[in-house]
Amino acid sequence: MQLFYRENFAEVKQLDDTDSKHCIKVLRKNVGDEIWVTDGKGGMYHCRIEDANPKRTGLYILSEEQGFQKAKRRIHLAIAPTKNLDRITYLVEKATEIGISEISFILTSNSERKVVKTDRIERVAISAMKQSLKAYLPKVNEMISINQFLEENTASQRFVCHLSDLSKPLTEHKIESDVCLLVGPEGDFDPSELEMAAKAGFEQVSLGDSRLRTETAGLVGVTLLNLL
Amino acid sequence: MQLFYRENFAEVKQLDDTDSKHCIKVLRKNVGDEIWVTDGKGGMYHCRIEDANPKRTGLYILSEEQGFQKAKRRIHLAIAPTKNLDRITYLVEKATEIGISEISFILTSNSERKVVKTDRIERVAISAMKQSLKAYLPKVNEMISINQFLEENTASQRFVCHLSDLSKPLTEHKIESDVCLLVGPEGDFDPSELEMAAKAGFEQVSLGDSRLRTETAGLVGVTLLNLL
Repeated sequence: MQLFYRENFAEVKQLDDTDSKHCIKVLRKNVGDEIWVTDGKGGMYHCRIEDANPKRTGLYILSEEQGFQKAKRRIHLAIAPTKNLDRITYLVEKATEIGISEISFILTSNSERKVVKTDRIERVAISAMKQSLKAYLPKVNEMISINQFLEENTASQRFVCHLSDLSKPLTEHKIESDVCLLVGPEGDFDPSELEMAAKAGFEQVSLGDSRLRTETAGLVGVTLLNLL
Repeated sequence: MQLFYRENFAEVKQLDDTDSKHCIKVLRKNVGDEIWVTDGKGGMYHCRIEDANPKRTGLYILSEEQGFQKAKRRIHLAIAPTKNLDRITYLVEKATEIGISEISFILTSNSERKVVKTDRIERVAISAMKQSLKAYLPKVNEMISINQFLEENTASQRFVCHLSDLSKPLTEHKIESDVCLLVGPEGDFDPSELEMAAKAGFEQVSLGDSRLRTETAGLVGVTLLNLL
């Protein structure tokens, strides 16, 4: 099964330029062929090709389902991106496959990377969503400072990954339906940042005994939050 | 903290050529400096440099610990490698960080990749072990056929990842101390392979509702087996 993506599909009932080309030119689909489209907001549409236009393929909706395989909880991963962008790209791909609602890039005092091009990250998320046949596209946020993030985050359950005597293993928590996990940079958080996080209601958690790289911590956290 | 690796370190008490060069030339360590070495078999050695030789750094063992952070269970991941080798390399790195005892590459009838150079994979595992300050190097096995693997595997608890009505979520199992997880190729197992696996005592498990790529399934499986 091949899944296509178009924002606001229910209104436009067309594929965009890239997906049209892929559908008509590469996959050689034609009028009458059936394909699947998601709007990335939970809508999954079973369609028939009405206009095999390689720039704006026109579709007829045969059936649709809203809230397609809706996750049991809202998971927001906030992470200080690694110096090597490939590692973050890979994390976004895997997190999208496993299931995540939102990803934020956080600037901390020990961050080696101060810029992330979210359009590239979003393309990776779209591709992973199609690949794993999901109907929800994670929201990808522009990088903001940890201060601003801590002030603005409204998740009902908030965790910050940190190995210390204060940290309780994430696996021992009862996970709620709206959770945010904050993961620090390669050089770890600054003590003042951890203090700020505590004031903002972020509880320190550990992800087992291993010293994990930043992106591995993100992956392990997302896996546990999904499946616990 | 910088960790070095040398097989049979207790006997040789030297770093190998590559690590010696890194230690003496790159990190500019000298006689009297202290470093850490693991033998990859659970031995963690706190050492002092006695001979700052950039080809075979000689060390004096100040203290040692055997069974350093020994995992609570033995996890053997058996996986049909993906066409794109980078994906498998990444999986090995992450699985080593998270914690794994052994990895086997499995040739199945739907496998697109029929060869894996285990020396490259082993280098990745060594590097990940050092990075995550672990004292156990996963055993990396040469590729064998699924038939041979199923005949020879002796883990006390055996799972095969497959989405079907027979599959119980992995999270609902009580995980034992010696477990093997088998993950299929991008084109999935052949029905006869699943039948063979069942005969060999492999129970079908699911890793949640998502359709995961092969290497993502391996990662999610290793995370859950470690932390459940």
